[in-house]
Amino acid sequence: MKKTLLISAASLFTLGFSAPLLADAHVEQSADTSLDEVANAALENDAYAWEFVEGVTTEVGPRQAGTEAEARGRAWAVQWLTDHGFDNVADEPFEMTTWVPGDIARARVTAPFAQDMVILPLGNSVATPIGGMEAEVVFFRTVDELRAAPDGSLDGKIAYISHQMRRSMDGSHYGFAGPARWVASGIASSKGAVATVIKSVGTDHHRNPHVGGTGWPEGVTPTPAGALSLPDAENLERMFERADGRAITMRIELNPESIGTTMSGNVVGEIVGRNPSLPPVLLACHLDSWWNAPGAFDDGAGCGIAAAAALNVQKTGQPLRTIRVLFAGAEEVGLFGSTAYSAAHIDEPIGVGLESDFGADRVWRFESNFRETNPDLHARLAGAIAQFGVANSTIRASGGADLNILRDQGGAIIDLQQDGTRYFDLHHTPDDTLDKIDPVQLRQNVAVWTMVAGILANESGSIQTGGPIPSAPATAGE
Amino acid sequence: MKKTLLISAASLFTLGFSAPLLADAHVEQSADTSLDEVANAALENDAYAWEFVEGVTTEVGPRQAGTEAEARGRAWAVQWLTDHGFDNVADEPFEMTTWVPGDIARARVTAPFAQDMVILPLGNSVATPIGGMEAEVVFFRTVDELRAAPDGSLDGKIAYISHQMRRSMDGSHYGFAGPARWVASGIASSKGAVATVIKSVGTDHHRNPHVGGTGWPEGVTPTPAGALSLPDAENLERMFERADGRAITMRIELNPESIGTTMSGNVVGEIVGRNPSLPPVLLACHLDSWWNAPGAFDDGAGCGIAAAAALNVQKTGQPLRTIRVLFAGAEEVGLFGSTAYSAAHIDEPIGVGLESDFGADRVWRFESNFRETNPDLHARLAGAIAQFGVANSTIRASGGADLNILRDQGGAIIDLQQDGTRYFDLHHTPDDTLDKIDPVQLRQNVAVWTMVAGILANESGSIQTGGPIPSAPATAGE
Repeated sequence: MKKTLLISAASLFTLGFSAPLLADAHVEQSADTSLDEVANAALENDAYAWEFVEGVTTEVGPRQAGTEAEARGRAWAVQWLTDHGFDNVADEPFEMTTWVPGDIARARVTAPFAQDMVILPLGNSVATPIGGMEAEVVFFRTVDELRAAPDGSLDGKIAYISHQMRRSMDGSHYGFAGPARWVASGIASSKGAVATVIKSVGTDHHRNPHVGGTGWPEGVTPTPAGALSLPDAENLERMFERADGRAITMRIELNPESIGTTMSGNVVGEIVGRNPSLPPVLLACHLDSWWNAPGAFDDGAGCGIAAAAALNVQKTGQPLRTIRVLFAGAEEVGLFGSTAYSAAHIDEPIGVGLESDFGADRVWRFESNFRETNPDLHARLAGAIAQFGVANSTIRASGGADLNILRDQGGAIIDLQQDGTRYFDLHHTPDDTLDKIDPVQLRQNVAVWTMVAGILANESGSIQTGGPIPSAPATAGE
Repeated sequence: MKKTLLISAASLFTLGFSAPLLADAHVEQSADTSLDEVANAALENDAYAWEFVEGVTTEVGPRQAGTEAEARGRAWAVQWLTDHGFDNVADEPFEMTTWVPGDIARARVTAPFAQDMVILPLGNSVATPIGGMEAEVVFFRTVDELRAAPDGSLDGKIAYISHQMRRSMDGSHYGFAGPARWVASGIASSKGAVATVIKSVGTDHHRNPHVGGTGWPEGVTPTPAGALSLPDAENLERMFERADGRAITMRIELNPESIGTTMSGNVVGEIVGRNPSLPPVLLACHLDSWWNAPGAFDDGAGCGIAAAAALNVQKTGQPLRTIRVLFAGAEEVGLFGSTAYSAAHIDEPIGVGLESDFGADRVWRFESNFRETNPDLHARLAGAIAQFGVANSTIRASGGADLNILRDQGGAIIDLQQDGTRYFDLHHTPDDTLDKIDPVQLRQNVAVWTMVAGILANESGSIQTGGPIPSAPATAGE
């Protein structure tokens, strides 16, 4: 249908309509047509997203929040955006309280079946004594089992908490298994445990622990907390089956520490629209990664997808609205960048926000939070990306971690859900490397994002309502 | 056909034949019939092999040759064989020169793209200076490229050697890619390199290096040598593409050492035959593993398969010949156990030898070294295991690493080739864990081995020729 419209515009030209009208018709119609062509071209040969994620993983590598590595990542991203012609590129700094993992992470079952285990500290873990600590391990199959343990029953013990995480396309099992990491160490400490060891919250079977943040409730003393790789955790559980009443003892040594306040930052860049006074389209991702993970899937790919979409939309001509990319800092350790961005820009309305932060496998479902208030736009977007295998959905979009500003402003949000079936094989592990990215699926992401960002960036009315934009002339500059 | 024979034996009984004849007929015929049944039962539900490999990986773990961990492995295996009713269980000690990996293995690209890399030392590597060493890295795509480098051209440099290993069912690409590990460090040292770093000889993409032995020619000074994981190696190669003439420098720190002479040993056990004077059937594997690898695929599974076959054959009645299992020590570091076993037992003829040491995936091809000299037996064996999906072959068996005694005696050898397609994903890595074993394929191995070992153990003539056994009465004790 859009190709038909282009022919119509051409026909108008031969019929001798006035230039201004023609120009308008041409811009309006060919923008759509061209967008479809550009998105389809991205599906076949987009190079931006791959170039970004290859570059940041190769030239920077892991980018732990608040460290010099994250700062190098920001400098690299600023350079990349500048080199690719983005406007208003900036590194917007903010302060954060920074935790670093240290360089010692050892675990060994000392009895009855002595062998080393692969462990890494969880974010916010405190250190063990130098030289390590040894204690009996108490096995909890689930966080609920741990909750049921009597107070004081873990005095002097190491709590080990398992779970059974399954692969799921929408990643919904993270909510089921995640508490083993999120809250178990706090619960265990409150019951007297001297340390907590968990089965990594992941779905793979490689000897690389999945890290991530944990925490302790107010008034509970933080204790050392680490994650075993899945094979190590399963091995430990087999030991319990075979121990025949004997105590299983483990020695662990971890030396993470909090280093106080350091700087992080949010990197932004823009494709400036024809009417910069219209609320921009915000394409978000995060630039930081855990120290152990090069952050290809999480979230180099997401930043590559967002940046590629902006550049591809620009190929169709200058968009009506500004497209802003936000490469947030310090997401992993507590959404510090997202919070700082919202605080700094809360008074500058955002038209709509999207985030890519669930790997690089294909987008399979489209969700918005304006399906009921702006059904026409929702339907147009869903219709435009159906060709890329994306299903429409009645689920209300809630937005990714780096879209705090949209939630704080009560703004329009779109979620382009990615296939997360293998996401938790790689999440927060050393295996989150470039080779895990399927270039074909990465390009499908770019095609979908290009189409969505292109439509949004040329909307003159309110994205939430379809009506006029409050305090901004709907057609100014057109 | 064999089931028909059992019915015939039963029919004989009802016809009132004399007890001795009947017993003979019953034993002879039902032994075959029973063997087929037992092998098929193993295919469905063998538990021995899994129990062994689960046990040794859970209760012992990695078993580096010459260390206390290998000694614990031997003690564990002696207990397991004893518990399962093997006769003449023994740990036959031998001395070896022992290398240990140390506990520091660090690599970091320091410029122009600073980031850590995952490295482990290669066997026989010497240590770096304490605190590490830093030098420019020179990239060689292949060992042949390294060979072509002028003498002295690597003075003060770290040589990095790549390769392109592909998966293959028969593992034949190990011969193509292996020299990067086997000889590159020797060549690099001879040209002045201060250290050698290789792309792991493997086919996976996980952040776990593949270790294994290397060496230096006579007169060449050993230098530190390590393997990067495949993703790290590929990342380093991308850095060379992007360095634009800048030197790539790397800091490495490794602290392996040779600790002199320690003890290793070969664990043996027997199902004693009805005629112990006949040369036994030797079922071999190795018990040691590299320090970083729990040794499930390499080679806990192999020992489990060999032991399971012996126990299953015994279910059909006492075999004619003794079946001896040999769990060799110190295979990984130079076939020390195989050599020691041959030296100790060279004067005791072995009837035939088989080894399982290529993982736990299905047996797909049958080879012997007596196809021309004893075609009847070769054909019977091939025919008996065709039902399990094993193809016959004209390739001459040469025997696994732990069959030195067969090669030294010029004896009969069978190779039951396993599907090695994913073997080099796991070979010599921390990922060589129990979860990688497919129980269905493991049982297929046991079924095939049970059938082959059962036929061999009931052969009264020479396995190599089909004729009388030299210096042993062919039917003694029958």
